[in-house]
Amino acid sequence: MSHLTPRRPADETALPRLDFHPYRWGDPAHAVTLSERLIGALGLVGISVRETPPTPVGELRLPPSRLSDSFRSALVELIGAEHVSTAHDDRVAHAVGWSTPDLLRLRRDALADAPDVVLRPADHEQVVALLTWCSEQRVAVVPYGGGTSVVGGLAAQRDSFEALASLDLGRLDRLVDLDATSRVATLEAGLRAPRAEELVAAHGFTIGHFPQSYAGASIGGFAAARSAGQSSAGYGRFDDMVVGLTVATPRGTIEVGHAPRSAAGPDWRQILLGSEGAFGVITRVRLRVRPLPTIRVFEGWRFPDFASGAEALRRLAQDGPLPTVLRLSDELETLVNLADPNESLAESPGGCLAITGYEGDADDVARRREAATAVLRDAGGALLGEEPGEAWRAGRFNAPYLRDPLLEHGVLIETLETATFWSSLLEVRQAVSDALTTALAEQGTPGIAMCHISHVYETGASLYFTVAAQQAEDPLSQWATAKRAANAAIGRLGAAPSHHHGVGVDHRELYTEQLGPVATEALQSLKASLDPVGILNPGVLLPRREQ
Amino acid sequence: MSHLTPRRPADETALPRLDFHPYRWGDPAHAVTLSERLIGALGLVGISVRETPPTPVGELRLPPSRLSDSFRSALVELIGAEHVSTAHDDRVAHAVGWSTPDLLRLRRDALADAPDVVLRPADHEQVVALLTWCSEQRVAVVPYGGGTSVVGGLAAQRDSFEALASLDLGRLDRLVDLDATSRVATLEAGLRAPRAEELVAAHGFTIGHFPQSYAGASIGGFAAARSAGQSSAGYGRFDDMVVGLTVATPRGTIEVGHAPRSAAGPDWRQILLGSEGAFGVITRVRLRVRPLPTIRVFEGWRFPDFASGAEALRRLAQDGPLPTVLRLSDELETLVNLADPNESLAESPGGCLAITGYEGDADDVARRREAATAVLRDAGGALLGEEPGEAWRAGRFNAPYLRDPLLEHGVLIETLETATFWSSLLEVRQAVSDALTTALAEQGTPGIAMCHISHVYETGASLYFTVAAQQAEDPLSQWATAKRAANAAIGRLGAAPSHHHGVGVDHRELYTEQLGPVATEALQSLKASLDPVGILNPGVLLPRREQ
Repeated sequence: MSHLTPRRPADETALPRLDFHPYRWGDPAHAVTLSERLIGALGLVGISVRETPPTPVGELRLPPSRLSDSFRSALVELIGAEHVSTAHDDRVAHAVGWSTPDLLRLRRDALADAPDVVLRPADHEQVVALLTWCSEQRVAVVPYGGGTSVVGGLAAQRDSFEALASLDLGRLDRLVDLDATSRVATLEAGLRAPRAEELVAAHGFTIGHFPQSYAGASIGGFAAARSAGQSSAGYGRFDDMVVGLTVATPRGTIEVGHAPRSAAGPDWRQILLGSEGAFGVITRVRLRVRPLPTIRVFEGWRFPDFASGAEALRRLAQDGPLPTVLRLSDELETLVNLADPNESLAESPGGCLAITGYEGDADDVARRREAATAVLRDAGGALLGEEPGEAWRAGRFNAPYLRDPLLEHGVLIETLETATFWSSLLEVRQAVSDALTTALAEQGTPGIAMCHISHVYETGASLYFTVAAQQAEDPLSQWATAKRAANAAIGRLGAAPSHHHGVGVDHRELYTEQLGPVATEALQSLKASLDPVGILNPGVLLPRREQ
Repeated sequence: MSHLTPRRPADETALPRLDFHPYRWGDPAHAVTLSERLIGALGLVGISVRETPPTPVGELRLPPSRLSDSFRSALVELIGAEHVSTAHDDRVAHAVGWSTPDLLRLRRDALADAPDVVLRPADHEQVVALLTWCSEQRVAVVPYGGGTSVVGGLAAQRDSFEALASLDLGRLDRLVDLDATSRVATLEAGLRAPRAEELVAAHGFTIGHFPQSYAGASIGGFAAARSAGQSSAGYGRFDDMVVGLTVATPRGTIEVGHAPRSAAGPDWRQILLGSEGAFGVITRVRLRVRPLPTIRVFEGWRFPDFASGAEALRRLAQDGPLPTVLRLSDELETLVNLADPNESLAESPGGCLAITGYEGDADDVARRREAATAVLRDAGGALLGEEPGEAWRAGRFNAPYLRDPLLEHGVLIETLETATFWSSLLEVRQAVSDALTTALAEQGTPGIAMCHISHVYETGASLYFTVAAQQAEDPLSQWATAKRAANAAIGRLGAAPSHHHGVGVDHRELYTEQLGPVATEALQSLKASLDPVGILNPGVLLPRREQ
């Protein structure tokens, strides 16, 4: 158990906020190398490592910027010369997100496309002015928060637009207001998560949103892509926290969220949440915040198998009490433990590792812990104590950092996620896992698919898959084939195209297929009303409509 | 404390399910008369009663049905002769909802308009077929669930349409599926609430949704109008319970809710919830259900004033634990106690009555009750025991039944509600109350405005006003003036146009004003995509767009 200093942020704010390396996950200061143990574990599943060094950023070839001089002058007029950049490194950094295909593209010697210009407006009014101008001039705009999309959310189509601009919201980085009575913080959208957490922590509050992209992702991006953090059982998903939004569109401003809840029509927050920059640019987010926790306990549990562990999670999700963090790794993830190498568990007698984390005040943590412990024991769990729990907590942002050295050593590694109802959970897990391993094996590169549950609801849960295989000659096409197979399985079983990564371009086909033509066209009509020229993230979320 | 029989529904299902009287609230079997005590209490605030008998339904004059013979034949072809009605009483019953203005209209000797025909399809496919036909033939359609709208939700504009049809979903009354593992019930939209509750109770579950309109309202109506029930603190609002929806539109079917939660795009459930029949006709609702409670305790509390009571509710809403029912009446409502005449309180030394109700299993109820009791005491509350709590519970559907005899005795009585953040709660309450009483006084009919909080959230709460005054010569115009003043105050302070009654036509102006032109036009575009001819509830929710 850890007693946290009151009125101080949880230690997540201790993460450095540095410039990000354009072709690595997260913060370069956190870069890791492959351990002998991990290389050995990969060997056990038939994956051998070899060096495949990337092209240095400065040597990456890009198509030249198509921004005309007159366009540049107009943009400089709107937001100032120092905020209109066509620098090579800026264009590279804004060209891709943090997915494996994005990193693989950056490891080649050339990028097929990149924004012609990076724009850094100062405030909401400048965003509106830029969108108005871009709409008039037919310049496509890719809203850019933290740039951490893993579903191609930055891969807008250039099509017949005059130019492609990246709209970087990094300068919109203020805590605008904190209503301590209502527990509502108003934050500018460009704030990266650690800084946002630090700003509200100074008032004694926490946002409580800690996804793996935490170090880089922005408040606006969380909203635009419906992020879900590792503490979702306790704090909710990001879309649960959003009380209001200010959004700039080419036609002007939308301000939504005039009350905690309302019966007045469709919930506009839920139209703009998940709209991925295609309907407008989120410039401010009003968030429900909570008091900083004073106590923290994380524990590990072992279940004999995934089914019994899932059943235990279902009982907590439906009848409570819910821990703040609740997750379950399947047998393979527990064994390989790529997500968090923890030697003591590698020596464990198998089964499935579950993590329970409790944060709050002393009474609340004690009560929930005691009651949840009784449920987990009754459901067949064996308590492993705080060590594996704390090990998971300490390393919980680390797993993705392994990807860079794995890619450099010829290993293909990527993740995907879905969600479904409890009654379909085991079937969906099996089908997606089979689809991935079959598709990899058929390409001559047999791989593994590990799975965990990390977000639970009364009616169902998320399923998160981590896939590893030897890289084929063309790893982009290799992964695309595996991903298609997974999407087909998800589509066939009617599960969610994505639980928390979003749609981007990678899930667009599955998403619109599941939505059906009537609903898809209705969203296109809504977009056309907000963005008549279609400049906003063209081709992201929704297919472009014939103009 | 009441021990409830396991696997039996809460006693709400004991309410009779009879035919409803077309110009009375609820079930005629529950009709009440004015007590001498209430007449006395009204006298104290300057309201004297006098007899104003209504016109019998059979004598109400209506414009003749404009349904042509060829249209009737086509409709009979689609759903059968016995389900196509132009009977006088049917047309009257489908012409208005349950608001005071609706009841006042029915008390006159003629209705300005009524549907030309009442259609009763058997299933989703017939609804789609009817909408397709009506769209082709330019027949406006008013979806009809329980007919309990109190905001003019049935008052669609006839405009230039060939005819106006009421689409009564009463035959869509099945429990389609109950997934006990995921705790999801699939219910047809025309089910009235008591029957729906009875159907899921047979499987050991409850929906947990008990608004005052419970006896008459339908499952589809709850969804279409974002209902919130009296147990919202424990079970959530209806829009919290909706897992999925099947919706018929003139262009075909939309099926949404493929997973408990998803990051894939806007949340379509939240687009269709609150759409009030303007985007499509909800035919099936997939609902999260919960085990039937086995224990129930209701208690009364007295707070010295509204501010201290509201502060106590805020503490429970923000830091827990939440009772299943949590509400607070202001001083005047506590005193006049129109909502629930309870003699013991009338003799009380003033202050504000709060009600806490706990439902669940024995452990859960004991824990929440103990912890909430400590918070309420600490916040200045005095426990009044179970008697006032049980009295409230027993009478909780009764208050609206008083309206009919009050209207018959020359009293104007109506309610309205809003929601706002905790930091604005007292200001909004004062402003709305002042607006109502000033507007009534200025018309020479001074009245009273009582208020209660009945729904709480972490960031704010609802405010529900009950208004009474002597009826003026033209009570419809008298109320319209008061309502305009309340809406103006709500709009000025940026609170919700409605917390749980919906928009209908009564809140359309305030709603679209607050939404702003960009968002309003986007919703009109979305509607135009789903309903190109604009036949669905024209003028309800959104103003009709120039065609």
